[in-house]
Amino acid sequence: MSMDASGVEARVRASFMRQGAMALLGATVAHVAPGEVDLHLPFRPELTQQHGLFHGGFIATLCDSACGYAALTVLPAGQEVVSVEFKLNFMAPARGEHVVARGRVIRSGRTLTVCQGEVLVTEGGQERTVATMLATMMAVQDRAALTG
Amino acid sequence: MSMDASGVEARVRASFMRQGAMALLGATVAHVAPGEVDLHLPFRPELTQQHGLFHGGFIATLCDSACGYAALTVLPAGQEVVSVEFKLNFMAPARGEHVVARGRVIRSGRTLTVCQGEVLVTEGGQERTVATMLATMMAVQDRAALTG
Amino acid sequence: MSMDASGVEARVRASFMRQGAMALLGATVAHVAPGEVDLHLPFRPELTQQHGLFHGGFIATLCDSACGYAALTVLPAGQEVVSVEFKLNFMAPARGEHVVARGRVIRSGRTLTVCQGEVLVTEGGQERTVATMLATMMAVQDRAALTG
Amino acid sequence: MSMDASGVEARVRASFMRQGAMALLGATVAHVAPGEVDLHLPFRPELTQQHGLFHGGFIATLCDSACGYAALTVLPAGQEVVSVEFKLNFMAPARGEHVVARGRVIRSGRTLTVCQGEVLVTEGGQERTVATMLATMMAVQDRAALTG
Repeated sequence: MSMDASGVEARVRASFMRQGAMALLGATVAHVAPGEVDLHLPFRPELTQQHGLFHGGFIATLCDSACGYAALTVLPAGQEVVSVEFKLNFMAPARGEHVVARGRVIRSGRTLTVCQGEVLVTEGGQERTVATMLATMMAVQDRAALTG
Repeated sequence: MSMDASGVEARVRASFMRQGAMALLGATVAHVAPGEVDLHLPFRPELTQQHGLFHGGFIATLCDSACGYAALTVLPAGQEVVSVEFKLNFMAPARGEHVVARGRVIRSGRTLTVCQGEVLVTEGGQERTVATMLATMMAVQDRAALTG
Repeated sequence: MSMDASGVEARVRASFMRQGAMALLGATVAHVAPGEVDLHLPFRPELTQQHGLFHGGFIATLCDSACGYAALTVLPAGQEVVSVEFKLNFMAPARGEHVVARGRVIRSGRTLTVCQGEVLVTEGGQERTVATMLATMMAVQDRAALTG
Repeated sequence: MSMDASGVEARVRASFMRQGAMALLGATVAHVAPGEVDLHLPFRPELTQQHGLFHGGFIATLCDSACGYAALTVLPAGQEVVSVEFKLNFMAPARGEHVVARGRVIRSGRTLTVCQGEVLVTEGGQERTVATMLATMMAVQDRAALTG
């Protein structure tokens, strides 16, 4: 993880800006470091499930993206990341003013990167963990494999 | 699974309409039967990841919802469903005109319901599986536990 | 999946015989076909958890092996398989005379193979599903990577 | 987690001794504290997969048990634990003299307990993480539900 930190951040932000999905949600990049990406998402009614809490799927979406970008920070320039699979446990109702998803690389390999994700909701100044993720990401050399 | 089919469908549709998230995505209920729910989502650029395909997180969101509603169809009236956890494997790039997520109950218990989800994308009239899910849902008696 | 069926079965059986773990459990190969492997395990008290049922971990072990060998059947000769990750849902208490784990390839790629596993227990002539698995397997070219 | 520590340890050890599976593997209880259980397993050829490393399924078995017992430590006396599901990522080849599986409670609820598991192998005095688990455990009031 000896990458140039500013180059890594630029790669993450450039890719993030091309995601229609992140714009639709209203998510932003809050933190980038080698092996670490945090994404931030403020609450609004369009993000809810049937009881007015953040939708679990959107929590998964944010956390999957945070993990994918965390993986990207540890790959050589020119490589891309695809999600192979992930598992998410929901741990508490996601009610609050905003969500932060923290993606962290816990095992970095040539082909596969394993990431741990944590999602925290802030409500009235109090932060609590609402979900935890374990994700497998794959490095892809050529863009064709991604859109193929 | 001896429920009145129209009552089950009404419950699913009433809950679905309260989800801001499903409206934001543009998803609709395509099929409801005891133990089965299909959700439908047409493509648009706001739903994409950085390479113009359906975002994996939104595929997970749709499939999680399909599984949750499939579980709801086998519970007694008055009970609600929360997602405990799910795992999703991505199996092919999700490029096409629309997505269908199929949630199916594979084990129905008093407290926990296990569901299998499958996501198919249609492109040029051809349908292919792009993701598969295994999800655990919990029946909740009182609404307080959901928003708690 | 156009392999020579007998060659595939020979590869599976040769690898299986090298597993100390399968001998310790008392498992045998019950079925091999392209993309399909079934493993069989008779009950004995050494395989139990604290309530006298088959231990869930051994059910996972058998199912992981069935999935890994199912993946091996669809790879070119000379390649080996390692488990990247798996998830298992337990669906019923595993009490009975024997267990069968069925591994099936549901997506075959150059690097990664996705498998679905099902574990059935037979008790008094009645068979029921006790667990379901979703597993990711990786093809490995050289043996060094396996023992590395 | 305000339990009497020695009472908790006695419960874990009493249950552990009833598991034929743990005796077959040769596992022992290495550490018990509220929300924490470590299990220890020395290498022997009967525990291997086809390349002479610890079998991934046995690593999963040990880690599932460590997580289940960690969950037991935070439940009221008289309750039992069953594994609902778990996911395991394999992170490195499991070659070494012994394995330790560490189960930790990360979310404790009335019905469900979420645990994180980590498996470390020691080889030549060097310890490294070979697997990570995310598991859901369920509290069960009556023994009938367990043997059902």
